[in-house]
Amino acid sequence: MDKPYVVGMDIGGTNSVFGIVDARGNILSVDSIKTQAYREIDEYVNAVAERLNPMIEAVGGKAKIKGMGIGAPNGNFYSGTIEFAPNLPWKGVIRLADLFQEAIGVPVTVTNDANAAAIGEMTYGAARGMKNFIEITLGTGVGSGIVINGQLVYGHDGFAGELGHTISRRTNGRQCGCGRTGCLETYCSATGVARTAREIVDCTNEPSLLRDIEGEITSKDVYDAAIRGDKAALEVFNFTGSILGEALADFVAFSAPEAIILFGGLTKAGDLIMKPTLEAMENSMLNLWKGKVKLLVSELKDSDAAVLGASALAWG
Amino acid sequence: MDKPYVVGMDIGGTNSVFGIVDARGNILSVDSIKTQAYREIDEYVNAVAERLNPMIEAVGGKAKIKGMGIGAPNGNFYSGTIEFAPNLPWKGVIRLADLFQEAIGVPVTVTNDANAAAIGEMTYGAARGMKNFIEITLGTGVGSGIVINGQLVYGHDGFAGELGHTISRRTNGRQCGCGRTGCLETYCSATGVARTAREIVDCTNEPSLLRDIEGEITSKDVYDAAIRGDKAALEVFNFTGSILGEALADFVAFSAPEAIILFGGLTKAGDLIMKPTLEAMENSMLNLWKGKVKLLVSELKDSDAAVLGASALAWG
Repeated sequence: MDKPYVVGMDIGGTNSVFGIVDARGNILSVDSIKTQAYREIDEYVNAVAERLNPMIEAVGGKAKIKGMGIGAPNGNFYSGTIEFAPNLPWKGVIRLADLFQEAIGVPVTVTNDANAAAIGEMTYGAARGMKNFIEITLGTGVGSGIVINGQLVYGHDGFAGELGHTISRRTNGRQCGCGRTGCLETYCSATGVARTAREIVDCTNEPSLLRDIEGEITSKDVYDAAIRGDKAALEVFNFTGSILGEALADFVAFSAPEAIILFGGLTKAGDLIMKPTLEAMENSMLNLWKGKVKLLVSELKDSDAAVLGASALAWG
Repeated sequence: MDKPYVVGMDIGGTNSVFGIVDARGNILSVDSIKTQAYREIDEYVNAVAERLNPMIEAVGGKAKIKGMGIGAPNGNFYSGTIEFAPNLPWKGVIRLADLFQEAIGVPVTVTNDANAAAIGEMTYGAARGMKNFIEITLGTGVGSGIVINGQLVYGHDGFAGELGHTISRRTNGRQCGCGRTGCLETYCSATGVARTAREIVDCTNEPSLLRDIEGEITSKDVYDAAIRGDKAALEVFNFTGSILGEALADFVAFSAPEAIILFGGLTKAGDLIMKPTLEAMENSMLNLWKGKVKLLVSELKDSDAAVLGASALAWG
């Protein structure tokens, strides 16, 4: 191949990770900087370029690089910008693609992190060969990347695929960071799991290991209690899965995907979350889809997934 | 143009209508037969061909016909079949495309009626020039055709776009013909409007013209009462619009369309239905889409829409 490598970069609220990747998804080199250490976007771009350019030289220079893909919160594929991302230090509209194109000297493509995960899954992971699937990222929030006819769905404005903000509970729903109530994300993110645990502890007298936790209950606490057989903790996962499965059934009615692929921290709970999710999804789907839509866990290694996903954008 | 015409056919539970259409959406000739009069599919195909073949001869023969598009309940684009359509006389899987291809001698494409409406809208109607929109058909049921990147979404199996069967009410939802409860269709179809009217009449003491109706209340009765200022009838439209608008907001989170286009009998109620629908949609959407997604009424003439939509399939 003339240009055998791509660059992937994941911009997170804490770390920005970037690496050089080959066509099989091997990461040749990787490095990172602290996102919050750079109040000005120009300083940030320079700091990345100072580390990334030598990595590129080490594999033969930018003549060997097909392009650079960036996954970032609120990243817009059409404009190459990030816009008003609440967890990043730079305010307003940032021309991310242009800035990195100048600093690195290769074509740059931007999208949001959940879309990057979906493209990574299609290129290197569980969705290889699939033309129609939905990737759901279960992290601090709930994100999604939708692939139809082999193409990522960006929509009219570049912001399609906000399935974490479809409404799971229209009455008495939980307050969401987006300003509305009842969003899927308030139930099925790591934060949502912690909220459910707090509700069960506060609203029932059920004995539970979760009662002994001082301060905030985390989703990790719920997992630890559940694998020890704690009934309340198991209930948390069952409730989370039932809400997620109901939502997935509605997503199937939209795009009739071959598979739904779950990605992110919560999937580490394995059957604890997958079983109730699958059960609720099967119970909630139209008859014509029952037993026909695969529910899978991502095959992207967690530590590499963000960089891999972003890099896959650059194969274009 | 070498082949300046297409044939469109709409198979309904009562009538099957077929016509010859030019590239501007003019219907040159149209005819129909009674769907239920033919218990065997071969008799049915022959009856259509006996009338359609002379119509084709009259415009210069099949050399002038680019193809035939058929919109039918449960029509599958990939297989060219209709499968287990509850309102049609033929049971099991019917190889509709093959049968008509033999009888008429032109290429035949099949899809369901809501998808046909969406393609018709894109070819001849309010969605001309749009690459991303959702067509919602509000008839006896609620159907949908979703267009993304200029392509109709068929999904992995050809059955994508069953938005009438996404769940509007997860608790205490109305029984749906699909066997589940709370589907959008049970609230926002013509039948749903009639059910809401019956509920309001039965569950309140509000004075209303609807109380004087003997037998079933129809959606037409509700419309007639509403334009006379009947409070209960107005409430029916407000409730219907609020449920529809909430659902549309979730659909926007999926594919971020340029527009949502409403089609079918219920849109004849004009502002009575459009105003509460738009209001609920705007109130329910994520901030980033507020004021940006058009809510439109179909520009396909009602009497011609089904044939036009089906015919547009054949331009392919």
